[in-house]
Amino acid sequence: MTARYDFASDNTAAATPEALEALLAANSGFTSGYGTDPVSAQAADLVRELLNADVEVRFVASGTAANAISLAALCRPFEAVLAHEHAHVCTDETGAPGFFGQGLGLIRLPGASGRIDGAALAEALAAPDVSYRQPAAALSLTNATEYGTVYSAEALGALIAPAKAKGYGVHLDGARLANAAAAGFDLKGVKALGVDLLVVGGTKAGMPPTEAVAIFDRGLARRFDARLKQAGQLPSKGRFYAAPFIGMLRDGALLRHAAHANAMARRLADGMPFSVRHAVEANGVFVEMDDATLARLHASGWFAYRFLDGSVRFMCSWATTSESVDAVLETLKKLR
Amino acid sequence: MTARYDFASDNTAAATPEALEALLAANSGFTSGYGTDPVSAQAADLVRELLNADVEVRFVASGTAANAISLAALCRPFEAVLAHEHAHVCTDETGAPGFFGQGLGLIRLPGASGRIDGAALAEALAAPDVSYRQPAAALSLTNATEYGTVYSAEALGALIAPAKAKGYGVHLDGARLANAAAAGFDLKGVKALGVDLLVVGGTKAGMPPTEAVAIFDRGLARRFDARLKQAGQLPSKGRFYAAPFIGMLRDGALLRHAAHANAMARRLADGMPFSVRHAVEANGVFVEMDDATLARLHASGWFAYRFLDGSVRFMCSWATTSESVDAVLETLKKLR
Amino acid sequence: MTARYDFASDNTAAATPEALEALLAANSGFTSGYGTDPVSAQAADLVRELLNADVEVRFVASGTAANAISLAALCRPFEAVLAHEHAHVCTDETGAPGFFGQGLGLIRLPGASGRIDGAALAEALAAPDVSYRQPAAALSLTNATEYGTVYSAEALGALIAPAKAKGYGVHLDGARLANAAAAGFDLKGVKALGVDLLVVGGTKAGMPPTEAVAIFDRGLARRFDARLKQAGQLPSKGRFYAAPFIGMLRDGALLRHAAHANAMARRLADGMPFSVRHAVEANGVFVEMDDATLARLHASGWFAYRFLDGSVRFMCSWATTSESVDAVLETLKKLR
Amino acid sequence: MTARYDFASDNTAAATPEALEALLAANSGFTSGYGTDPVSAQAADLVRELLNADVEVRFVASGTAANAISLAALCRPFEAVLAHEHAHVCTDETGAPGFFGQGLGLIRLPGASGRIDGAALAEALAAPDVSYRQPAAALSLTNATEYGTVYSAEALGALIAPAKAKGYGVHLDGARLANAAAAGFDLKGVKALGVDLLVVGGTKAGMPPTEAVAIFDRGLARRFDARLKQAGQLPSKGRFYAAPFIGMLRDGALLRHAAHANAMARRLADGMPFSVRHAVEANGVFVEMDDATLARLHASGWFAYRFLDGSVRFMCSWATTSESVDAVLETLKKLR
Repeated sequence: MTARYDFASDNTAAATPEALEALLAANSGFTSGYGTDPVSAQAADLVRELLNADVEVRFVASGTAANAISLAALCRPFEAVLAHEHAHVCTDETGAPGFFGQGLGLIRLPGASGRIDGAALAEALAAPDVSYRQPAAALSLTNATEYGTVYSAEALGALIAPAKAKGYGVHLDGARLANAAAAGFDLKGVKALGVDLLVVGGTKAGMPPTEAVAIFDRGLARRFDARLKQAGQLPSKGRFYAAPFIGMLRDGALLRHAAHANAMARRLADGMPFSVRHAVEANGVFVEMDDATLARLHASGWFAYRFLDGSVRFMCSWATTSESVDAVLETLKKLR
Repeated sequence: MTARYDFASDNTAAATPEALEALLAANSGFTSGYGTDPVSAQAADLVRELLNADVEVRFVASGTAANAISLAALCRPFEAVLAHEHAHVCTDETGAPGFFGQGLGLIRLPGASGRIDGAALAEALAAPDVSYRQPAAALSLTNATEYGTVYSAEALGALIAPAKAKGYGVHLDGARLANAAAAGFDLKGVKALGVDLLVVGGTKAGMPPTEAVAIFDRGLARRFDARLKQAGQLPSKGRFYAAPFIGMLRDGALLRHAAHANAMARRLADGMPFSVRHAVEANGVFVEMDDATLARLHASGWFAYRFLDGSVRFMCSWATTSESVDAVLETLKKLR
Repeated sequence: MTARYDFASDNTAAATPEALEALLAANSGFTSGYGTDPVSAQAADLVRELLNADVEVRFVASGTAANAISLAALCRPFEAVLAHEHAHVCTDETGAPGFFGQGLGLIRLPGASGRIDGAALAEALAAPDVSYRQPAAALSLTNATEYGTVYSAEALGALIAPAKAKGYGVHLDGARLANAAAAGFDLKGVKALGVDLLVVGGTKAGMPPTEAVAIFDRGLARRFDARLKQAGQLPSKGRFYAAPFIGMLRDGALLRHAAHANAMARRLADGMPFSVRHAVEANGVFVEMDDATLARLHASGWFAYRFLDGSVRFMCSWATTSESVDAVLETLKKLR
Repeated sequence: MTARYDFASDNTAAATPEALEALLAANSGFTSGYGTDPVSAQAADLVRELLNADVEVRFVASGTAANAISLAALCRPFEAVLAHEHAHVCTDETGAPGFFGQGLGLIRLPGASGRIDGAALAEALAAPDVSYRQPAAALSLTNATEYGTVYSAEALGALIAPAKAKGYGVHLDGARLANAAAAGFDLKGVKALGVDLLVVGGTKAGMPPTEAVAIFDRGLARRFDARLKQAGQLPSKGRFYAAPFIGMLRDGALLRHAAHANAMARRLADGMPFSVRHAVEANGVFVEMDDATLARLHASGWFAYRFLDGSVRFMCSWATTSESVDAVLETLKKLR
């Protein structure tokens, strides 16, 4: 029996051919360093085109770093970030926002299926500033969400507007932005929503480790390279972080692969013999499964993880095949 | 005229064929994440073999991160690191040690050609602990040094022994460890020297962005993955950081390429029409050149940078060719 | 109408005559600085006597600093502290533990009346170490608790033992240690419980701003003065932080005043026309009161604050008089 | 033989009668906490009057904290502060600026007798922003300087103007501001100089531990109480930090005592049998003295410390008497 990580996460997959071809193409000759090279410039242009916005773009090594640096740019240590209680920044990054932000706080908000509840946000925004608590200074959102749902532009706007009205900064964690876009979320509308810092996920979208940070608020871009360098996130050989984006963006591979991942999740959900907990709008399927059954699934070789809401998560990626979906479904049916 | 970055740094080069082939070979199928994959395991084995030591090995994105995390592991914020005043950690990492180490101090020591002066170290080690200064808790060394010289094992040992005698931790920045090894420095002897944390440079040695951290003091390895994750340095797709080391280590490519880089520096030094300031023992050549001449060099298209000691640095890498050496020498001769 | 802060907190009171007399007595002549003076030495001796333990003692400016520095001494940034969800370090110190500890995490545990629930602690201690969450490295306790209850030595021991068994450090926030002691908690038994760092509260006990940190684990005392100095907590004129402890400890004033405060809380509870939510074991009384009633109380001039559990808190101190208790009870009765 | 700390520092003295009387007067009744009390308000008014400026005022526990918090307010971690290489923030605060500022850098500038050299500052201001060094964002000045000299308003203005022209923040460490004022420095002119954050020293001026932070740039005052609270510097019993300023400011005691300290330094310098190195403009006298002589001085019971420039420092304070000056001069004469 071979261990199968196909559905364990969307980062268990290899990189796409398009990403690697671009990386290989970039691997030629000498270039200037630290993101000043032509490959990085071209990739940044493509990100700007993707977003239809004149943003500053930087490429960094990991989503954790991209998120934490963004939040540190928006908050001072004695302030806090409003985020969904199950957002990646709250639950899966080992306290990176506090580390990069010197203790900045996270104010955890509830909400069904990974989306922040509007009333809870309103209540948090109405909380008085008191010296003994970290007052909020930023709102962090995630699209697609941790539970495989997708915010519409309207839904995001409804959360962002009152935060902006208070002068707060806005961060959008787009580790799975491609999946959201493939599900209909309009990337060219992000600017109008008032997002200040957007992380365009590369890794989970099928690239080698790389993430793009799009800086909508140009004031935040001041000395950003120094900020990145100090944080160990300004690669001397910047082209290796940038090139995969070229491969994925120049002919639409990013969205094409994401659409495939979403379709695989749909297929998985459609055949799923267990109860599906959240709407399947992107590339994840969350099901009700007891511990004994999960143990038997693991014993069969297939890995899937229990999530914070108690459901078991199955993620699809660009590399997920119909065959593997059918194979895991076959196994799941036997577990019932 | 095309801008030529051949000698601007050893990180302006592309990645070696061996590194990329291994990366491509690793880019297959699904694996577990965060460095628990078989590729990372194999690469770690090869690093252990390289060092002939049962070290813990982690792969991270950048040398700045590798160094800063190492120093933060060795010192508390109210302590300090002893380092050469021109060490990379002191001069070229935007204060990353202080950022990762929450204000940890750097005590800058002098020394000719990038090597710490033994008497200066002894004086620093003899300084009394006072509450109003950050007392030293670690010694940071660099081999090959920033000025292209190479410490012998004896020379390193003479610096390390008194620091260890005081109970200090020892960090060795090996961004150019391959060049030092190609110059005769015995990697299998590092363990005996008492190094606690060694950074085995990948990027400057001809890999895509990746560095190996070898943890000799296993006590320091406790919860190191959490440390890395919090710092944005535990890649979900760990195989991309590990694979290049496989390509470079399994058949000696690392040292072979480093030897070539060193030989190119030798060739450059031998033909150099300007006075060479430091012994050329690795892959860098530092020459005396006034500003007007340097400006004319830049105008000719060739980039080289003035260094902290006032000399102008020319770096060679695995990708440096005899032809480019001869071409830059041709240009340099005309500048005289 | 005069605003009355008598019951708003136990830090609204002035300092006791004993504390101030000692301060005045210490205010004579020239002494060495930074805690090396004879007054600091004498006060440290008295703290050792109070605890019957050969601890290191330091005096700092605030409870927030004392707690945060203690937690930072026990945890690294990628680790976390287990604490009651309503502990002062979690709710009222503006994230100071994360600031002093560079992002160290707080794992909030439930428990009735401010005491950590043993089963919840056991569950937290059993949680596996995973790289993407901050694993616990310390347990923080508070006695008397935030809700005016007092842990017995047995109850504390039952929480500390399993944490120590895992090698965790233990911090005891004793902002109201005197009140706990006056309620029967044996200070000379703290050492046997396995506490590593104890904050002996001065301010709320009736002193000018000062807190004593008792370091039971002498290993933690290494370079503690440098730690304090860097944190802005090593006063040059140390005698001013130390002297109040002399006044309060040399003839039992600390416990005498605390017993009075506890007795006043008892008197207040006994006459209270509102339902009392938590056992009144120290110097606080928490009652059920709706918003309208609280507003009318405030309008009457008396301040009391709604607490995190929804109850309204009345604190007594050394300076609380029977007359003021009776006066506030008179007002409260009219509000029913 | 009794150890004599009279000249060891200006913080070895007790507090002045005026400061303590005000403290005793404030020690009455119940007040609101965290600096919202009437005593703090009155003291803040007196600081505003002293400076003839509508500044925000906060009182904190130590000069180290006051300075470090100020610098952290002016710089982000990837930026740096320009300061005299022997400024207290650079040499005597255990790296507190880096701790409070999460690694913010210090760029050390030379200059005779503790005053920053204008040409060195100009050179630093002209340095290009590069991503691998921490670029300056603030200028820190000290008056009176560490070497007992006093900047005139003109001299300070000549340093501040070019820094402000670059948009940098300006911090003035006034641990000995009273001594500077007594020497003729016009406190009401500080505002016009462009200082953003001024620390008005209390401790060395003869108070119990307390320092006032005057915030000229009101934008920096936003959420300053949360900043202080998180840093352990928002005392619940704020009146104890504020009251000494009332005692010292309401009838001119601050300047009167400082003038006395300066006069004692003058008397000491006039009789000094050793060569005086720096102009005696405030309350310190720095003399040339070899180690053997210093050891004999210490053996005689009088403490004085060797400073970073190699001279031996004698500090006078409000409590220094003519008799003690004459007594130490008597001893010094025998040492020649």
